[in-house]
Amino acid sequence: MSTGNNVRIKYLSQDEAIAIDQELFTTYAFSVDQLMELAGLSCAQAIYSLYEKGEVLVIAGPGNNGGDGLVCARHLKLFGFSPIILYPKPSKSELMTRLVTQTKFMGIPYVEEIPSDLSKFSLIVDGIFGFSFRPPIREPFGLILRKLAQSNIPIFSIDIPSGWDVEKGPPAADEVPCLKPDALISLTAPKQCAKFFEGRAHILGGRFVPGELAKKYELQLPEYKGSDGILNLSDS
Amino acid sequence: MSTGNNVRIKYLSQDEAIAIDQELFTTYAFSVDQLMELAGLSCAQAIYSLYEKGEVLVIAGPGNNGGDGLVCARHLKLFGFSPIILYPKPSKSELMTRLVTQTKFMGIPYVEEIPSDLSKFSLIVDGIFGFSFRPPIREPFGLILRKLAQSNIPIFSIDIPSGWDVEKGPPAADEVPCLKPDALISLTAPKQCAKFFEGRAHILGGRFVPGELAKKYELQLPEYKGSDGILNLSDS
Repeated sequence: MSTGNNVRIKYLSQDEAIAIDQELFTTYAFSVDQLMELAGLSCAQAIYSLYEKGEVLVIAGPGNNGGDGLVCARHLKLFGFSPIILYPKPSKSELMTRLVTQTKFMGIPYVEEIPSDLSKFSLIVDGIFGFSFRPPIREPFGLILRKLAQSNIPIFSIDIPSGWDVEKGPPAADEVPCLKPDALISLTAPKQCAKFFEGRAHILGGRFVPGELAKKYELQLPEYKGSDGILNLSDS
Repeated sequence: MSTGNNVRIKYLSQDEAIAIDQELFTTYAFSVDQLMELAGLSCAQAIYSLYEKGEVLVIAGPGNNGGDGLVCARHLKLFGFSPIILYPKPSKSELMTRLVTQTKFMGIPYVEEIPSDLSKFSLIVDGIFGFSFRPPIREPFGLILRKLAQSNIPIFSIDIPSGWDVEKGPPAADEVPCLKPDALISLTAPKQCAKFFEGRAHILGGRFVPGELAKKYELQLPEYKGSDGILNLSDS
């Protein structure tokens, strides 16, 4: 992966990612609603910058990574894409419940299980597991990951390619199915597994990190251009 | 004001604006956190598109218009501007309190009253009153508006030029001081007073209106370009 002039950007350990997240919600008093909205918007902006409009299968896990996916689906719809959502293990949290209402009322269809034929989709958005993921993978997500790993449809992974170790990257060949995403968006800052990303575009998104927090964790974030919400780290 | 190819765009009455707002929060289950984040972000994007970086005085009223202003200030800081906030009547609401914490921890200074000399500011952001405003104007906002009306610093008004009637526009000459903003951003859709705007740029922002809601209220919104969060209605 080329990181261009951003060679010093820091790749976070799982514990660092969790600590930064906590600090944003405590010291800085952000709400999950606020940051998830900005994160999901940047995912949709990245997808707009990389792919033609078409039918997009957005797969949402039960946690905040899935929430980013649901927000992303909502903005994709406003950008002229045709998202379809697979959200097999709905969370009972108030925020996630509202995200479902928002997307359903915006006319975004839901499917109950992974379609056997994925060929009608131009893109799959992987919002299954995020930076707090630890194995084992529970069903139906094992089945879904096997299906995605066998497919040729490009995959856009949010923050972590699902099934990868947050620090050590792709699973060993004899373990779980290995996703090879076409694009990866790192929210806030890349996690260590992003070093193993070999796809077409590594994007930085989630432009909400206060300068002092970036300094404290020595994030060495490259500068976003203008008022952009995303930065393509693969552009050297 | 030129509305270019958007001549059919609807200008909302106060009651319609309030009804649409309510429907977003009830039927569509959006949180104020979510929509204020997108609204404030679009304000900052509009300012970035129109003005050079510099010291910007952001004046926030006690309601949601002020909240949009605080979110705008936060994004302006990330975009390289130097915002300074005047928020004379702080709300006790949990969201507004958190917005203050976020901006303060991001190193944005607050001032207690309107500076007597405004000449160091390159721009003033008017986030004082929004679409639910009804007279009379209480102090210190009367004083602030008089000061702004006398100044030559360009004013960027959020949703409503403060002191204007939401439907009938600028106050009569012998009433309250009349702001003449250089730019106006209409969030969601323009309110009727925007017909009287004679400044340089009328921007549409707050790109989150579900298609069905736009249809129900016959908003006739022009199409945003690509993944943009703002649209300059003054560009014909």
